[in-house]
Amino acid sequence: MVMTERAIRCRDEVAAAIAAGAPVVALESTIVSHGLPRPENLTVARRIEQVVREHGAVPATIGMIGGTLVVGLDDAELTHLATAEGVTKLSVRDLAVAAAARADGATTVASTSAVAARLGITVFATGGLGGVHRDAQQTYDESADLTTLGQTPITVVCAGVKSILDVGATLERLETLGVSVVGYGTRRFPGFYLTDGGFDLDWSASSPAELAAIMAARRAQDLHRAALVVANPLPESEQLDPALHDEVLTEGLAGLERDNVVGKAVTPYLLAHFHERTQGASLAVNVEIILRNAALAAQIATAYHTAAGPSPA
Amino acid sequence: MVMTERAIRCRDEVAAAIAAGAPVVALESTIVSHGLPRPENLTVARRIEQVVREHGAVPATIGMIGGTLVVGLDDAELTHLATAEGVTKLSVRDLAVAAAARADGATTVASTSAVAARLGITVFATGGLGGVHRDAQQTYDESADLTTLGQTPITVVCAGVKSILDVGATLERLETLGVSVVGYGTRRFPGFYLTDGGFDLDWSASSPAELAAIMAARRAQDLHRAALVVANPLPESEQLDPALHDEVLTEGLAGLERDNVVGKAVTPYLLAHFHERTQGASLAVNVEIILRNAALAAQIATAYHTAAGPSPA
Amino acid sequence: MVMTERAIRCRDEVAAAIAAGAPVVALESTIVSHGLPRPENLTVARRIEQVVREHGAVPATIGMIGGTLVVGLDDAELTHLATAEGVTKLSVRDLAVAAAARADGATTVASTSAVAARLGITVFATGGLGGVHRDAQQTYDESADLTTLGQTPITVVCAGVKSILDVGATLERLETLGVSVVGYGTRRFPGFYLTDGGFDLDWSASSPAELAAIMAARRAQDLHRAALVVANPLPESEQLDPALHDEVLTEGLAGLERDNVVGKAVTPYLLAHFHERTQGASLAVNVEIILRNAALAAQIATAYHTAAGPSPA
Ligand SMILES: [Mn+2]
Ligand SMILES: [Mn+2]
Ligand SMILES: [Mn+2]
Repeated sequence: MVMTERAIRCRDEVAAAIAAGAPVVALESTIVSHGLPRPENLTVARRIEQVVREHGAVPATIGMIGGTLVVGLDDAELTHLATAEGVTKLSVRDLAVAAAARADGATTVASTSAVAARLGITVFATGGLGGVHRDAQQTYDESADLTTLGQTPITVVCAGVKSILDVGATLERLETLGVSVVGYGTRRFPGFYLTDGGFDLDWSASSPAELAAIMAARRAQDLHRAALVVANPLPESEQLDPALHDEVLTEGLAGLERDNVVGKAVTPYLLAHFHERTQGASLAVNVEIILRNAALAAQIATAYHTAAGPSPA
Repeated sequence: MVMTERAIRCRDEVAAAIAAGAPVVALESTIVSHGLPRPENLTVARRIEQVVREHGAVPATIGMIGGTLVVGLDDAELTHLATAEGVTKLSVRDLAVAAAARADGATTVASTSAVAARLGITVFATGGLGGVHRDAQQTYDESADLTTLGQTPITVVCAGVKSILDVGATLERLETLGVSVVGYGTRRFPGFYLTDGGFDLDWSASSPAELAAIMAARRAQDLHRAALVVANPLPESEQLDPALHDEVLTEGLAGLERDNVVGKAVTPYLLAHFHERTQGASLAVNVEIILRNAALAAQIATAYHTAAGPSPA
Repeated sequence: MVMTERAIRCRDEVAAAIAAGAPVVALESTIVSHGLPRPENLTVARRIEQVVREHGAVPATIGMIGGTLVVGLDDAELTHLATAEGVTKLSVRDLAVAAAARADGATTVASTSAVAARLGITVFATGGLGGVHRDAQQTYDESADLTTLGQTPITVVCAGVKSILDVGATLERLETLGVSVVGYGTRRFPGFYLTDGGFDLDWSASSPAELAAIMAARRAQDLHRAALVVANPLPESEQLDPALHDEVLTEGLAGLERDNVVGKAVTPYLLAHFHERTQGASLAVNVEIILRNAALAAQIATAYHTAAGPSPA
């Protein structure tokens, strides 16, 4: 028990909310350390938490400080991950190695989900999921987010997956892995920057209460070991211009070949290309997405925890 | 507990048999709602249950009625799923969403296995397993049946997988996922309509008692989280004529390209093509398969539960 | 309990060490029965155990004798698996079927890991892992070792994977499945016969104590359901000559096409080709690898169990 205390530290406010069965929303820190440029990243990280509070839930941004997993980073810790050099991106498989190295680290969709579920947090807000890479038929490059979501019973609010991935293959993997996917107000899977990512969904929900009812059914059935993904599209008025998106994507994919970019360099290359070529519009859309997802996640957590009453520890 | 009662309802006869450690055979409802044409589907569904009884076990057809998972549908419920419009096909990931929508639904191999194992049912009879689709190298289309069988300790009696899938790739996935496959009276994996699906098996058993001994060893070792697939081929005298089969399959695959059929439309297209072109012979074979599998499943359940004595709740 | 006793038998010395929280190293038997030629195989099997003892841990070679899984084969049993005909190679999915058949069998990386973890053994030494086969994009041939490591919390010391596999794809699968990979004294993934297998690693450790600290962090975090792979390269002075390796590999792959070798015949064909064409040098390297891994595994187990104190049963 002493070891566990040291391995994972939960901020008092978050621990109290979990214990009381009150709504909590987990948040990842990779978007803070790696996903957004400085210094906006810290401002946005604080706004995300504020949005969660405004919608009635306690925010719990998760990260690693000096080898300790912290659930509910305080402002000094958030600032540290937003500004320090050498913050490592940590998937689930990295958590213990990083802990032994007393590292500072940011948690991905996979590791945030795993840590949150382990502590009994039921809802998690992020931007987009990792997925199957476009060349995965040859490279086998598939994000551990998918496998982890296939093993982690938590509700994840996102805006689909970025079009730089193989969206169709990602949806197939989610199906194969038993991850439930429900569109929020839509039967089309959102494409992150785009309202419509080009693929149909089997299920849709139109309110936080409906999603809370699904979560209650999951708990009652006790058959779901995988995540529930809530796919929350941007309204069309706020998406990236689809014509611009397609042009920039085509250019970016061509650039990969021209500049011989492969492996882990692909995603940062394409995102930087989007950022430059859209003159920051892709970044603004990215921020909008995460704020909207944080709001919806808080609403879902509130609906679920109000309806369900305090959850058993 | 109250929530669980509402989420899953077990027919008294089935619950009593499970509690007493008596033989029960789980049955899926997708074959009733989607797999067989009306009105034969209801007749066949009843015959399947009758065959299970004749071989000493209690049948438990599983489905969803008005959002409640029912283990052991009664005749009115079976009739409803066989005749109503709008019965949804539900894999594991759909179960809670459908429950919240108060849907009527039919369970697949994956969801039937998961529900049955959750209630302590040890044997399940079906026709053929889902598998890796022929174009999965590009599309990633692989049935959630495979992943679920990799996580669900239950014995599934089937006649292999249909040749419209990539049978070799499906067998590889079963191996990768740790699913045990034992031929019943054969070392060749059956091809559903065909006695011999074209691939070797490592293991074979020749009696229900042998299979019950394997199940007992699984329980004693406590190392198997995956399913045990019993591959039960049709006798050669009852299979679809192999020459006709190959001709119809080749035609059907060509038809996919000609008619530009992709994704979820592929399987129904090919099955309808088989049905038409064989003038119903493929359907008759399909019915024969499920009846034979139900009989073998009941014999295995009887052998296992007799040998093992009442199982612990 | 009586069934479990019969299903798995643990040698007294091993059981006592586990109960006392003393260091134990699990060892596989496939290398004895199938991986090395006779009669050296038995000599090597004994030397491996001796090396584990010399480094302070109790060796527990795992195998199946007459249907019983034995954890800690005695010398007569080891001799039997090294010399008898008809010893079957058993992955996890084969264990119960083989037990019911009262078979003699050798355990793979997958089944050795699963059995060892089930008994509370924390460290396992092997040669190389199974992986993604070179033609898996078409055939789907991926070793169950990978999936099992994704589900089994144990530390596995190996020298990477053989170059006859698709090493890059194997590393991607390990990442997707959440398996931690740490280089021992290197940030390059070893290529079994070769010190450097051609791919980077994210993490490295330089002492058994560091690896023990990672294991302690895994236990404290309680988030890791997958294995920790310690990739222990041969020193450059002991590797197979890289120029010879590349030549022999190229020849061997060409031979597969020429001789029309496919499926399960590929690996034995290529290994025999390496053995012949290197005039036994590949075999000598193989033996060196397993002895070095056994020594490191014993050191890690000793560091971990000394630091952690007796583990809870
Ligand atoms: Mn990747
Ligand atoms: Mn599919
Ligand atoms: Mn294989």
